[in-house]
Amino acid sequence: MAHGQAGTGQSASAQAAPRRGRPGYDLESLLAVAVTVFNERGYDGTSMEDLARRLGISKSSIYYHVESKEELLALALDRALNGLFAVAGEVTASGGPAIQRLERLVRGSVGVLADRLPYVTLLLRARGNTRTERRALARRREFDQIVADLVAEAEQDGEIRPDVDPAVTARLLFGLVNSLVEWYRPGRRAASASELADAVCAVAFDGLRIRRVSRAESPRTGPPATDSARASAF
Amino acid sequence: MAHGQAGTGQSASAQAAPRRGRPGYDLESLLAVAVTVFNERGYDGTSMEDLARRLGISKSSIYYHVESKEELLALALDRALNGLFAVAGEVTASGGPAIQRLERLVRGSVGVLADRLPYVTLLLRARGNTRTERRALARRREFDQIVADLVAEAEQDGEIRPDVDPAVTARLLFGLVNSLVEWYRPGRRAASASELADAVCAVAFDGLRIRRVSRAESPRTGPPATDSARASAF
Repeated sequence: MAHGQAGTGQSASAQAAPRRGRPGYDLESLLAVAVTVFNERGYDGTSMEDLARRLGISKSSIYYHVESKEELLALALDRALNGLFAVAGEVTASGGPAIQRLERLVRGSVGVLADRLPYVTLLLRARGNTRTERRALARRREFDQIVADLVAEAEQDGEIRPDVDPAVTARLLFGLVNSLVEWYRPGRRAASASELADAVCAVAFDGLRIRRVSRAESPRTGPPATDSARASAF
Repeated sequence: MAHGQAGTGQSASAQAAPRRGRPGYDLESLLAVAVTVFNERGYDGTSMEDLARRLGISKSSIYYHVESKEELLALALDRALNGLFAVAGEVTASGGPAIQRLERLVRGSVGVLADRLPYVTLLLRARGNTRTERRALARRREFDQIVADLVAEAEQDGEIRPDVDPAVTARLLFGLVNSLVEWYRPGRRAASASELADAVCAVAFDGLRIRRVSRAESPRTGPPATDSARASAF
């Protein structure tokens, strides 16, 4: 009886999911498993049979939710990209000096990465083998351009070291952020996303930011620099 | 005739290769092509048929050089790992403060990465699906431990910021180095390995190194700090 009740409960909550519902998996939980398998075996190396086996459901149950394997890929990559572009939009709207916007972009991106780790991992491994991957890579380049523009602007402001090419600086900065997917695993004993962002900003920005020994804050800055990298610099 | 002569010349040089020689490909050039294909398709997704087709030779011609696909993988991964461990060995033997040894290790690793880019790329993508990959991952962990120990030693020396966990610092530092495989492509207009190492060290170490305003060099240091990150810090 207890088992039956649990089953009923699960089925009821699945049916309450918006638009597409089916006992066992809603689109969200289906996608989460699919992304895990894509990351383990590679997207190209994963068949719908593989997914059905892992999910413990039939292929037709998967087709109830999506039209193709590539639709799952598209949904997964968008999950990562939409997160990153949401941060970029907020940062652009926030105003302030370019160096502060750049730091907010880094912090926000670390947050997206920690929160949507499997999705971002899949994005960073996309090589352009399908139309969906190529579209995702185009959006990644668009995001990278936002970063590169901010770095160039901050350098023009005299806030970022001029001895490293801004394009290289931008790549190194997000190379550092993206490298987190290789080792960061959220969990009980792991650093929080916020602590992780502190560490990344501390390491990255104390390298990037030109140090002004015994000089007042730039008058242009408005409020004092409260972003964590500066606060935790020493 | 010209074609024939070229063929003879190639074959002669191939036969001059040590131990294993065969007209068309020596082990070295065979390995270079295999690594390219492994990186494109993934090791698991590459068959000996795929390799033979790309090389334009028969499978038995490949077996003339190696016993299995996994032997090619092992040779390729060792090419990357032996380079990194050679640098680690030189650095350990060089002595000096930990912060300088750490910087030399970073510079040397960037050099290995630039020089053996496809091999290091393959190493960084290894996920432990075969015994050979697991052996390589164990050697990578050994290398990472060398980095972590150096970071901890430099922090004990008071040379590295204490507000970031040394283990996290070590991961961020080599995350930065390893991220180069995602975008660095040696070529006419590309930065040299040395310029790349300058940029990495400038960004990384100006974040890591505790700044001592108007203080003499540590007496322990011996020779003045000539490593590039310090020289190009501002």
